[in-house]
Amino acid sequence: MTEPAAAYEELKAAGLKLDLTRGKPSSEQLDLSNALLGLPGVGEYRSADGTDTRNYGGLLGLPELREIFAPSLQVPVGQLVAWNNSSLELMHDVLVHALLSPVPGAPARWADAGRVAFIAPVPGYDRHYGVCERLGIDLVTVGMTADGPDMDEVERLVADDPSIKGIWCVPKYSNPDGVVYSDEVVRRLASMPTAAPDFRIMWDNAYAVHHLTSDELEIADLLTLAADAGNPDRPFVFGSTSKITLAGAGVAFFGGSEANVDWWLKLTSKKSIGPDKVNHLRQAMFLTDAAGLRAHMAAHRELIAPKFAAVERLLAEAFADTEGVSWTTPKGGYFVSLTVPDGLASEIVRLAKEAGVVLTPAGATHPYGKDPQDAIIRLAPTLPPLDEVEKAMAGVVTCVQLALSRR
Amino acid sequence: MTEPAAAYEELKAAGLKLDLTRGKPSSEQLDLSNALLGLPGVGEYRSADGTDTRNYGGLLGLPELREIFAPSLQVPVGQLVAWNNSSLELMHDVLVHALLSPVPGAPARWADAGRVAFIAPVPGYDRHYGVCERLGIDLVTVGMTADGPDMDEVERLVADDPSIKGIWCVPKYSNPDGVVYSDEVVRRLASMPTAAPDFRIMWDNAYAVHHLTSDELEIADLLTLAADAGNPDRPFVFGSTSKITLAGAGVAFFGGSEANVDWWLKLTSKKSIGPDKVNHLRQAMFLTDAAGLRAHMAAHRELIAPKFAAVERLLAEAFADTEGVSWTTPKGGYFVSLTVPDGLASEIVRLAKEAGVVLTPAGATHPYGKDPQDAIIRLAPTLPPLDEVEKAMAGVVTCVQLALSRR
Repeated sequence: MTEPAAAYEELKAAGLKLDLTRGKPSSEQLDLSNALLGLPGVGEYRSADGTDTRNYGGLLGLPELREIFAPSLQVPVGQLVAWNNSSLELMHDVLVHALLSPVPGAPARWADAGRVAFIAPVPGYDRHYGVCERLGIDLVTVGMTADGPDMDEVERLVADDPSIKGIWCVPKYSNPDGVVYSDEVVRRLASMPTAAPDFRIMWDNAYAVHHLTSDELEIADLLTLAADAGNPDRPFVFGSTSKITLAGAGVAFFGGSEANVDWWLKLTSKKSIGPDKVNHLRQAMFLTDAAGLRAHMAAHRELIAPKFAAVERLLAEAFADTEGVSWTTPKGGYFVSLTVPDGLASEIVRLAKEAGVVLTPAGATHPYGKDPQDAIIRLAPTLPPLDEVEKAMAGVVTCVQLALSRR
Repeated sequence: MTEPAAAYEELKAAGLKLDLTRGKPSSEQLDLSNALLGLPGVGEYRSADGTDTRNYGGLLGLPELREIFAPSLQVPVGQLVAWNNSSLELMHDVLVHALLSPVPGAPARWADAGRVAFIAPVPGYDRHYGVCERLGIDLVTVGMTADGPDMDEVERLVADDPSIKGIWCVPKYSNPDGVVYSDEVVRRLASMPTAAPDFRIMWDNAYAVHHLTSDELEIADLLTLAADAGNPDRPFVFGSTSKITLAGAGVAFFGGSEANVDWWLKLTSKKSIGPDKVNHLRQAMFLTDAAGLRAHMAAHRELIAPKFAAVERLLAEAFADTEGVSWTTPKGGYFVSLTVPDGLASEIVRLAKEAGVVLTPAGATHPYGKDPQDAIIRLAPTLPPLDEVEKAMAGVVTCVQLALSRR
């Protein structure tokens, strides 16, 4: 038996049961927000402006919570909506609205527009693709660079094809590559000519404050740049407290131009009498202000940075000199992207699964679950305790080595 | 000046500012649930089955909360979903799903079905109409009887026309008439032949436990009757804790056949990673069980039954012998329906508004805001304190008398 094969047999014999699949916070991270479980407190239900948060109403959401998140999401408070517990839901529903009612600037609703396609920079987030696949929106892939999507390719596509109505972006600490869009990329997205007059940027700023180093990176202000370029309605901005406070019981945000927000409010008023404002009050009381938010995120960093460091260390020890194996070292976000020689990703994921280490399916970072190179594996190290991350990554290393040895 | 005209001038001079427009709970009703504001409590986040409610996941919602509501909503626990804070949102979104993906038994998704129409029993709930109007679903009106919709007319319509895909029903203490569907009406709805194989009953059981008298009325079990009649997938059942615990921070429910719930879960999994389970835990801890729910509703009744009694008393004192003026005396729910001679409703609402008493716009109880008889006024007495309900109703009486005198 070869050395890698023997190591793999040993790994299997260990009977591990570990999971690096999804970007979920760990119990320790959730513990940071346990005070929320007793808030707002009996007798506390008035917002700063005197609203009884217990009753119906208030589609925009509580101002004090929107004020805390307006700076980091780079949206003026008056144009930022706080909603319920899922930004994915907001993204899905804004596209449903666009399919069924013309977005500002649209010649028709997208359901009557024939083909509708979105650009998907790859690798990217599988749930973005899932929303489009479910709604019948085609996906056109474009490669990612170290600075964001390949803008030459994006500009070429959107200039010619009016059926391309949008692009998915995770502009800071992108899922899964950890890419931070350069100012130049943001400027080009804001100002590029598009054949579709109703083109939208789905700006999923999911990791706006999720730094892994003291280098707290900032990105350019898309909303202002788009307005300055004469495209004020182009950005739809999304954010969420799911990976800040409680993953399942947080608050999601939607922002954009006044026209976009008015359009959204008008349509949403037909389906809801307002978001859970008690939860808004709860979250605002807990985070207090932008400084409180920053301090809270520093506590997250203390818990998860060592896990990312372990991933980096184990990969570097094994593959620093291995051609064809590379990985990202993100300065924020929730993921590490591991690139292996073409054709090996799904084999490595299979080997790991057999050895009790569950990884995100190879291909999940691409539309329709198909990575044409079969080369990218997304690693999500936040959920398991540090020692399990180390064990799981040692297992991944063994699987990569076995796959490489078999080539 | 006539006597009614003089009384109206006096009313205007009083400078009232009262509101009987919407079915909102009062502050005192919300106070009944103030314990929720401190729940689940720091350190409390595990559900009965050990789930960490703080994290992502669990599309069905917490079992312990679904168990509390399964009996009153007449849906087996396994087929009852607990979601976020709005049943209106669930109704809207289930129709969006039906437009974009075939419901079980449908030959095509409704977006590709040409005309889609729903039956709207009138008078009914304006927000139901608003959802259909927003989604391009036509509304066909059918009259209400004391036992529910006019079933001869409903059966005639659905037997012939495959474009009629559904009917809106508030089967218990209906909005605004307080009608409780008879067993025979429920049986006919469950078993009637429909030209559309994908016909759905939107069973908005909003007032399932909202009794105003000790006569706690029950309705027939639609889901079982429909299954027995060979139409298991016909009912979509909805419920909500909004008028039980906190109006804006409650939990909404969706139920139906296993096929319907599977369909819903599959589509919803594309837009959300799950509902706010911490709120499910909070509500379950507060209500404890079906008996706790019943006791809680008795406390609501104690607060609001006197308001309904005041409406009844003031109307009876003024109009017991007036031809053409009648009103409902509901045994539950949130509304009283006042019928005036044809053509007078909007005039009375206008007069009341000028005198500082805001009523639901005349016509709101009909699709497109148009009551062809202009005869029905919906009164919502729960929100204002009792003395204000009395003052507002005295004002309404004056306005009705003035309008009658001017005929």
